[in-house]
Amino acid sequence: MPHYTLYGFNNSASTSIHWILAELAPLGATYDIVDINLRAGEQKADSYLALNAKGRVPTLKFGDKPVTETGAIAALLAEAYPDAKLAVTPAEGFDAHAFYLETLVYVLNSHLPVMRDWMYAGKDGAEEHAHGVRLFTLPRLKANFAFFDKQLGKTAFIAGDRPTIADFIFAPTCTWAKGLDVIAARYPNLKAYLARMRARDSWKAVLAREGVDPQLADWEKPYLEL
Amino acid sequence: MPHYTLYGFNNSASTSIHWILAELAPLGATYDIVDINLRAGEQKADSYLALNAKGRVPTLKFGDKPVTETGAIAALLAEAYPDAKLAVTPAEGFDAHAFYLETLVYVLNSHLPVMRDWMYAGKDGAEEHAHGVRLFTLPRLKANFAFFDKQLGKTAFIAGDRPTIADFIFAPTCTWAKGLDVIAARYPNLKAYLARMRARDSWKAVLAREGVDPQLADWEKPYLEL
Repeated sequence: MPHYTLYGFNNSASTSIHWILAELAPLGATYDIVDINLRAGEQKADSYLALNAKGRVPTLKFGDKPVTETGAIAALLAEAYPDAKLAVTPAEGFDAHAFYLETLVYVLNSHLPVMRDWMYAGKDGAEEHAHGVRLFTLPRLKANFAFFDKQLGKTAFIAGDRPTIADFIFAPTCTWAKGLDVIAARYPNLKAYLARMRARDSWKAVLAREGVDPQLADWEKPYLEL
Repeated sequence: MPHYTLYGFNNSASTSIHWILAELAPLGATYDIVDINLRAGEQKADSYLALNAKGRVPTLKFGDKPVTETGAIAALLAEAYPDAKLAVTPAEGFDAHAFYLETLVYVLNSHLPVMRDWMYAGKDGAEEHAHGVRLFTLPRLKANFAFFDKQLGKTAFIAGDRPTIADFIFAPTCTWAKGLDVIAARYPNLKAYLARMRARDSWKAVLAREGVDPQLADWEKPYLEL
């Protein structure tokens, strides 16, 4: 297996890939992390754009080969370490495989974009429209949390009975801001699931490096009352 | 192979799955289409929600088993018909496979949500914020078209030298409204690519059933001047 180099930033979209790498470390995966300070705009520096023309994190180098897009990187890592069972493959039966793919695509297609809009409404667009964009986004955010809460009443993880890349991509989004964490905690199955996910040794390893976002330190009190 | 039943609506998110099924017909795939009239709200009817709790199209039944999410359905169809080569598999080498996954995830994660917001800003949210949401969305839409135009200067299709599910998902989005088609046509590589995609027998089969949206009939004149 190649050595991995993750280009990312603490408590950001790269956290999911960091978490997956931490899951794979006991199976022999080795990795370094290069900090790309998003607040300082380092994702738009020429040296980084040469790796990732979209100017976003994460990028993961598989040996010398940079790969972009969280969903693609995660799928490739799951393929590289089949023993970790981070994907549900066709060999496990059509229904289980189809459900895994449906859930993964829902996270990528319907949840991550909503999170981005919620977090960056004032940065990706004009400040005067940011409040409107957030109001537009909020029902979707709540619908997503309700959707996963319902699923987690049936299965221990969002795509079945074991954690898959869909979980390591979804779960960190609930921690990206204190308000989010508080909202997520209002859904009982989701709350129990997040506690379960955060109890994993791999998450502890992620936290040890990335720390807790100061916005999360006192997370019982939402800074956004919704 | 199972018989397929597509639940969809003309010129909508289900068009991509219709197109893939039309591509697979010469290889023996058989399918029916059940119209879910989105303008009449049939996607929210109890009978449809029993198939797809999210109340969206497409849903594709693989035999008796309904599957949701365009990206998941398309990936499963590519797996079911490996001879159609609609996916780039690990057997074709890491770089080609990784590039295919990156491109597919970008379409699902960064392009489809932007299209939804552009088309449905006034429907998914309050009308008073729709204009702001569209202004927020427009630079992303243009950035996506520019991104694919650049890629299409290097490869004949967006994920490499042959069409994959990424193309059959991406290309229809350029036809969803006249304004979009006009914008897309401003990018020379994208314009040539769309002509190439639309020359396929499979697209002609799709058009024969779905028709041309009246908004597209006179597409040289954008109804939205941007």
